[in-house]
Amino acid sequence: MSVLWTVKAVGLGAVALSLSVELLGWLLRRLRPGRPLKQVIFFPSEVACVEHIFTPTSAYPCSCSLPHDVETSFSRLLRHILSASSSLDLCVFSFSNMDLSRAVVALHSRGLTVRVLSDKDYSAITGSQIGVLRKAGICVRCESGAVHMHHKFAVVDSRLLITGSLNWTLTAVLHNMENILVTEEPDLVRPFIQEFQRLWHNNDPVRRHLANVVRKPDRVTARTRD
Amino acid sequence: MSVLWTVKAVGLGAVALSLSVELLGWLLRRLRPGRPLKQVIFFPSEVACVEHIFTPTSAYPCSCSLPHDVETSFSRLLRHILSASSSLDLCVFSFSNMDLSRAVVALHSRGLTVRVLSDKDYSAITGSQIGVLRKAGICVRCESGAVHMHHKFAVVDSRLLITGSLNWTLTAVLHNMENILVTEEPDLVRPFIQEFQRLWHNNDPVRRHLANVVRKPDRVTARTRD
Repeated sequence: MSVLWTVKAVGLGAVALSLSVELLGWLLRRLRPGRPLKQVIFFPSEVACVEHIFTPTSAYPCSCSLPHDVETSFSRLLRHILSASSSLDLCVFSFSNMDLSRAVVALHSRGLTVRVLSDKDYSAITGSQIGVLRKAGICVRCESGAVHMHHKFAVVDSRLLITGSLNWTLTAVLHNMENILVTEEPDLVRPFIQEFQRLWHNNDPVRRHLANVVRKPDRVTARTRD
Repeated sequence: MSVLWTVKAVGLGAVALSLSVELLGWLLRRLRPGRPLKQVIFFPSEVACVEHIFTPTSAYPCSCSLPHDVETSFSRLLRHILSASSSLDLCVFSFSNMDLSRAVVALHSRGLTVRVLSDKDYSAITGSQIGVLRKAGICVRCESGAVHMHHKFAVVDSRLLITGSLNWTLTAVLHNMENILVTEEPDLVRPFIQEFQRLWHNNDPVRRHLANVVRKPDRVTARTRD
């Protein structure tokens, strides 16, 4: 009888242990801090002051005429970009938004590694912020191998992906129907990191210059043979 | 001694059972067919024949001069769209790609619910396929409340989201650096379904017409009062 009771008690203990382990695993998966962020933000954004996002510790509240303390699609985007602590890789077709330019320059000033890839034609249009970034000392490369470098994505700290239809312009932010998807899902972030690396490497001016130097004698030889 | 051995055996069994349950749970999570798809596709796409995707059961192989049996970024996109079995909700700024138009018309011909939202200006440009879709009997609405309806997303069977920088044009597919993200992740699909519903409802011509009818007497009254 005593043996039977022992077996029953240990058996029940086994079931309880199994269920506890399963429950604990489920809870850890739901609550662990590393659960990947997945967020969709739609535009146009409401118009609101974003000064407090740039200077959160300022003792003087902004006195501009825009609404204050309003969380908008644009303020959410800005916060994601300014959350960077080590690097920002930006690959954007059209970049003329001055607040976004200010955010990128701020990250560079903090000592982060900032790399910007843009379209060769759109980087030179009136209002483009590409010149401002270059003047601030940020390394910018322009894609020249395609009709358009039409991407609009950013990777923050090799961890957070921001991608979608939104060019970094004032019209896109305030007047267009647009979307961005913000995610830390490694299966989605990794391909964008690899694509950025590939484009960055392909558009290295030194590499392009060397390729031209190597190619030139061939062309001369070909002409000589004609 | 016999009791001790029984307790030991049952104890070991308990540990084995716990580990087995945990392992089984992990395996089920990894292998279950409902595991959300997460895929990133980059463009430009290689050029290849896509006839076999439209007519997979054809007895006659295509004799065009393009490469055959090549899996490309574009063929992957086409397969995702043609995988629809009940509905396609498409929200795209610029739509001039004839293969993509053929795919959308094919889904409509199969009896699926196809709804297309586009930009008011870009739906009327030369080469736009919006007229082709309308002629085929597909319900198309154009967004008129924003400067541009700049989205480029599709939702297949209210389950699969295709979104990114890619407009549905030939240049985007074959000549631009572009990306699309294809996912079944509910946290990402759901907001796009809601955004489509919102835009579809806001651009209902009947709703707009009724809103105008209601508004007109107010305007007359206002004039009379002046």
